[in-house]
Amino acid sequence: MLAEFDVIRRYFTLPSDDASQQGVALGVGDDAALLAPQAGHQLVVSVDTSVVDVHFPGDAPGDAIGHRALAVALSDLAAMGARSRWCVMALTLDQAWFANDQAAHAWLADYAKGFSALATQHATALVGGDVTSGRLAIGVTVMGEVPVGEALTRGGAQAGDVIAVTGALGGGHGGLALWQQGERDRSHPLLERYLWPTPRLAAGEALREWATSAIDISDGLLADLGHLREASGVGASLDIDALPLAEGLLDAMGEDAARQAALTGGDDYELLVTLPAAHVEQARQRLAALGVPFTVIGECSNTLGVHGLPVQRYHGWQHFKGETP
Amino acid sequence: MLAEFDVIRRYFTLPSDDASQQGVALGVGDDAALLAPQAGHQLVVSVDTSVVDVHFPGDAPGDAIGHRALAVALSDLAAMGARSRWCVMALTLDQAWFANDQAAHAWLADYAKGFSALATQHATALVGGDVTSGRLAIGVTVMGEVPVGEALTRGGAQAGDVIAVTGALGGGHGGLALWQQGERDRSHPLLERYLWPTPRLAAGEALREWATSAIDISDGLLADLGHLREASGVGASLDIDALPLAEGLLDAMGEDAARQAALTGGDDYELLVTLPAAHVEQARQRLAALGVPFTVIGECSNTLGVHGLPVQRYHGWQHFKGETP
Repeated sequence: MLAEFDVIRRYFTLPSDDASQQGVALGVGDDAALLAPQAGHQLVVSVDTSVVDVHFPGDAPGDAIGHRALAVALSDLAAMGARSRWCVMALTLDQAWFANDQAAHAWLADYAKGFSALATQHATALVGGDVTSGRLAIGVTVMGEVPVGEALTRGGAQAGDVIAVTGALGGGHGGLALWQQGERDRSHPLLERYLWPTPRLAAGEALREWATSAIDISDGLLADLGHLREASGVGASLDIDALPLAEGLLDAMGEDAARQAALTGGDDYELLVTLPAAHVEQARQRLAALGVPFTVIGECSNTLGVHGLPVQRYHGWQHFKGETP
Repeated sequence: MLAEFDVIRRYFTLPSDDASQQGVALGVGDDAALLAPQAGHQLVVSVDTSVVDVHFPGDAPGDAIGHRALAVALSDLAAMGARSRWCVMALTLDQAWFANDQAAHAWLADYAKGFSALATQHATALVGGDVTSGRLAIGVTVMGEVPVGEALTRGGAQAGDVIAVTGALGGGHGGLALWQQGERDRSHPLLERYLWPTPRLAAGEALREWATSAIDISDGLLADLGHLREASGVGASLDIDALPLAEGLLDAMGEDAARQAALTGGDDYELLVTLPAAHVEQARQRLAALGVPFTVIGECSNTLGVHGLPVQRYHGWQHFKGETP
């Protein structure tokens, strides 16, 4: 049987010389972790829970589930322009697994591989965890740092600012749809987008100098733009034809459905930012150097609401409710 | 229906002049919170998940569930000698509630009352949260601070050190047993102990000066003493007759069962510490000033294992497994 005390240490211990272990005075294994925050910085904290069959399909690969659970939390740090440092994980494992040691260990090894690879990539140490039994769910609290006063928020957009996004849109939605249709080729670009989303941490840090506001696209472009507009008190006009579509999306869904996915599909984890038009070219170049596309898709205005949509209403995704205005 | 975006803001927003809001540059409502760590301090972080019918009975009062979920996490900060500052909460609400608005709101109001009262008492701001549907569970990540190098850990006990505990033992186990037998008088001292445990934060800070090691008693005295012995590489002899028994425990259970509850019952959330005998009196006085009893129950030794137990084996509680050596 699984002993809850052992799971975290057994599957999630990284070598102490791993880059992620910087600033960890005491990691997993005591009542709490001891961490050394950097002087002149603010701590940036967010929590995200991923529940089986709500946020990811139960038959998704274990390593993708581990990757995604951390990625969606890191994406929130990216949206603040923060550097990621540490995380803790609350893992609820399926009760049935506790009757089947072998299945549990196989899944855990796979899950930990996906989680730890992304953690290492972003120098993020897992400094605490807790394992319970129930219905598979993962709660990840991420902690990052940003120089005092430099964080990006949802609240600074000004009328006249340009609206831009990193990467491409619609792939999260398109990938999930493909998965549900039975596609299992992990190298399909849409499946890759859905199962292994990329938190845009380097892009978020790079954009700090010019962006006036930022949010990550988890609920869908229109829904998240709505949060940003509300916090900033601005309207927006969008250029639908400018939306960067995820690779393979047009082929898989056709033009109308692809554009709908880009506007309202969730799970893209790209950054949506506003910035003065004068800095767009600099921002584009800096992000290009990071390998991240940067596309202008509209402009902030004084007229509240969203303009430029070809159909009357698009909807964003909200868990529990399904589509919502 | 409940909108997940609103739950945290609606039920958990405290006035910005509340003492808990110190050091919160940006709270709930953006992608992440922005916090100002104190110079010269380490960050102390722990996560605890409470699952219905595993860690608390589903029919427990909502305010007690809120109180307990935070209390068990704060108890880990107390065991490090830390001051609590901030927390985030991952709340998984019962799916059925989303079909019944009124029941959900009534429960949430109750739950938030218990959670927020304890948070305010310990100047701990809820700076982020996330609400999902599934089986009722609460994951709380707490963040505290401690002056650099002064944290208590499980690892510093020396042979010859005295072993002491705060408060009284067995009440968590006794209270749960009473609840399961149908007792519903919230003012019964044992129910109070189980449903509204007291995280010993002030005591933990006060003991920092003298304690050589510390742990909180969540799995039971013997089990947690085992963790401390293992981390410190010491043995222990206990004076069974010295164990401070929770109020009402003898009456409710009789002497043998009461002592067993004190040794192996979980959910007490008292501190178990070691310290040089020379400082016991100072520590006792300082804790008395805080209204917290402090009782010597044994001594650390060079002989590994636990000595002085009147029966061959007592067991500690481990979730999933039940009793375990």
